[in-house]
Amino acid sequence: MNDHRRLGRELDLFDTDPLMGAGLPYWLPDGAAVRYALEEYVRDAERRAGYRHVYSPVLGKRELYEISGHWSHYGDDMFPPMELGGEQMLLRPSLCPHHALIYRARPHSYRELPFRMAELGGMYRSELSGVLGGLTRVRAIQLNDAHIFCTPDQVAEEASAALGLIHGAYDAMGIDAARYRLSLPGPGGKYVADPELWRRSAALLREVLDGSGVAYEAVEGEAAFYGPKIDVQITDPAGRESTLSTVQIDFHQPERFDLHYIGADGGKHRPVMVHRSVIGSLERAVAHLIEVHGGAFPAWLAPTQLVVLPVSDAETDRALELVRRCRDRGLRAELAAPDQGSLGARVRAARLVPYQAVIGPREAAAGLIALRLRDGRRLDPRPADEVLHLIGQPIASHSADLLDRAGRADTRLRERTAFPG
Amino acid sequence: MNDHRRLGRELDLFDTDPLMGAGLPYWLPDGAAVRYALEEYVRDAERRAGYRHVYSPVLGKRELYEISGHWSHYGDDMFPPMELGGEQMLLRPSLCPHHALIYRARPHSYRELPFRMAELGGMYRSELSGVLGGLTRVRAIQLNDAHIFCTPDQVAEEASAALGLIHGAYDAMGIDAARYRLSLPGPGGKYVADPELWRRSAALLREVLDGSGVAYEAVEGEAAFYGPKIDVQITDPAGRESTLSTVQIDFHQPERFDLHYIGADGGKHRPVMVHRSVIGSLERAVAHLIEVHGGAFPAWLAPTQLVVLPVSDAETDRALELVRRCRDRGLRAELAAPDQGSLGARVRAARLVPYQAVIGPREAAAGLIALRLRDGRRLDPRPADEVLHLIGQPIASHSADLLDRAGRADTRLRERTAFPG
Repeated sequence: MNDHRRLGRELDLFDTDPLMGAGLPYWLPDGAAVRYALEEYVRDAERRAGYRHVYSPVLGKRELYEISGHWSHYGDDMFPPMELGGEQMLLRPSLCPHHALIYRARPHSYRELPFRMAELGGMYRSELSGVLGGLTRVRAIQLNDAHIFCTPDQVAEEASAALGLIHGAYDAMGIDAARYRLSLPGPGGKYVADPELWRRSAALLREVLDGSGVAYEAVEGEAAFYGPKIDVQITDPAGRESTLSTVQIDFHQPERFDLHYIGADGGKHRPVMVHRSVIGSLERAVAHLIEVHGGAFPAWLAPTQLVVLPVSDAETDRALELVRRCRDRGLRAELAAPDQGSLGARVRAARLVPYQAVIGPREAAAGLIALRLRDGRRLDPRPADEVLHLIGQPIASHSADLLDRAGRADTRLRERTAFPG
Repeated sequence: MNDHRRLGRELDLFDTDPLMGAGLPYWLPDGAAVRYALEEYVRDAERRAGYRHVYSPVLGKRELYEISGHWSHYGDDMFPPMELGGEQMLLRPSLCPHHALIYRARPHSYRELPFRMAELGGMYRSELSGVLGGLTRVRAIQLNDAHIFCTPDQVAEEASAALGLIHGAYDAMGIDAARYRLSLPGPGGKYVADPELWRRSAALLREVLDGSGVAYEAVEGEAAFYGPKIDVQITDPAGRESTLSTVQIDFHQPERFDLHYIGADGGKHRPVMVHRSVIGSLERAVAHLIEVHGGAFPAWLAPTQLVVLPVSDAETDRALELVRRCRDRGLRAELAAPDQGSLGARVRAARLVPYQAVIGPREAAAGLIALRLRDGRRLDPRPADEVLHLIGQPIASHSADLLDRAGRADTRLRERTAFPG
């Protein structure tokens, strides 16, 4: 594996600036392209799974976090309050209190549940400056978050479905979970009280994990202050473990915010909140992708998906035409012109780009494109339409492979041969 | 026109909560769908126009705004600083200082210019709580922003192209500019000094406006503190004018941040920053769309694009099948089942939805769909594929019309007739 800090800088993916501040990375265009592709993927996966997206502000009043319990349980990790018009405003430490307020603002019938409320939203943490660095120890976090408001009977199914979304995303991203952890409360006072609710929540999560068939370990002392969690753990190059995805059951905040729905009996009932994140924070997800893939992202995530290489200036117009056609289809294509070096040097410079389209005099005359894959495979020259179709399929379907099943079956691959330098 | 505050609440588009705070609206799922469609539109338009997107943090150190000039010229409108590890951190009042730092972090050759750096990013304003309301007077602003770093020779062309993007967006959104304003400095001390640069900038903007052929008025006292602007003005139902889109020329911040590029002569040169926003803030843009369209948004922006109405329970399965097919294509489709009322009542409830697909026993037997448009037009029953194509075209092309040219030519419309109640 690779260090995402070094690669992030070398590949111009992200950086920091002392005038913005430590732990506040910015994303350069290539890194932003990866992040946005991930945002689009998860948003669409959530849409298909029946989630409804909202936007909420990154600020809230101190009183909001007193109600949610963050102020007393998590206050040390929060940014200091800003006084404004006699109020104390805070950068939020998490999205759940906002989502609870949004749920509460309208009446809900049991017929509407589960209400799956999703948001890609900012949250803030006043980490000490000594530990900050890269995309993994940051003060501003962009979280893929959702809260499912549901009846107690629906919790297990919703939590299982969330695990399914997580599996699908890991497949698409080409990454693996290091382990699944059932995070339970430990000794000490950081948890909200109510042993019976903790017991019910933990039993539900065990049921979900047992049903999913994955191996897991129960670990005490890793729960959220409001409830137990399923944590999907990943490891960095140094073997350090961290949580990327999570599914949590929360009986606490529905009580604190006095949430309810009208049941089939016409009476008021308390919903449960299932907190879940499919890919965690965009920061941590992209850091992990950089480390696992060493910058050679799956094609749908790659900053540049296709580089077009005219052998000489005579083919540059045809190369530009192909770049234009790719961009019209939403593909991220770039020209590597002959003035950037020999063909071999340009191929080497594009070694992380999933697809390389070479256009020489023979291809130009025949109206064909010779496609080369990042792993060295070379495909027989074929018409541009066919090439666009071949590379468009795995990108549109978020496959971690460079050729989808149809593409592989349909393609005669040549031996791996290097271009002359 | 309509009041966006009333409609926003009635149509469940957005709302506020005292615990989040005044001037910090949240977006309910239907409002978030409109906003996201707009975000996608402008992002794609920018991508096609050669912009590269970045993400930058909403925080910066006080020193950053001392350099940019915001602290001295704009400090009264900023949120108070947060002390963190001996530093003063501020919620940013605009995106330009961050973009200047991102530009400065890497060397640039004249060959790379213009570098069009775009971001949909948050900025913050400590408006007095008395004036806050709806989506137009807010403390958190999500801005469609970009800064074009270019040579002095490129400024006029870049500013003209930005005006072109603005025209395209207004066509797609179905809105009109109330007037174009050339915003010049006025008497008083709020502007940075350098009369020669102000003169050059204003002359360039006049050239752009004259070239574009739009009528405009020059108004003193409306410039940004760092330079003059072209402002595209809109009016609210009360006739109050505000700025939605803007194109600004800035010689000041490139000086303050000591930006440069390497010219063809091998020497260092100072770039110009063109600040521009195509649709302004998402908050103001959506407020205006609500007011202009009274909630009957162009189909590509509508929270629900197609409502499917089975005449009786016997057709509900077929209706659900159509909803599923629409959603697979990314269309926002909903079922209005017979238990929600008579067909007439359901059609009336869906009066703002651009397309209504009625499936009765005759249509179900023939495998056809009877499409009805929001404006009362009814189309002859036709196969689902054809219906999907007919409504998919104006949505994909961001047309403000319910049927694109091909759809209109190809379609025999029936007289407007009401359904029996």
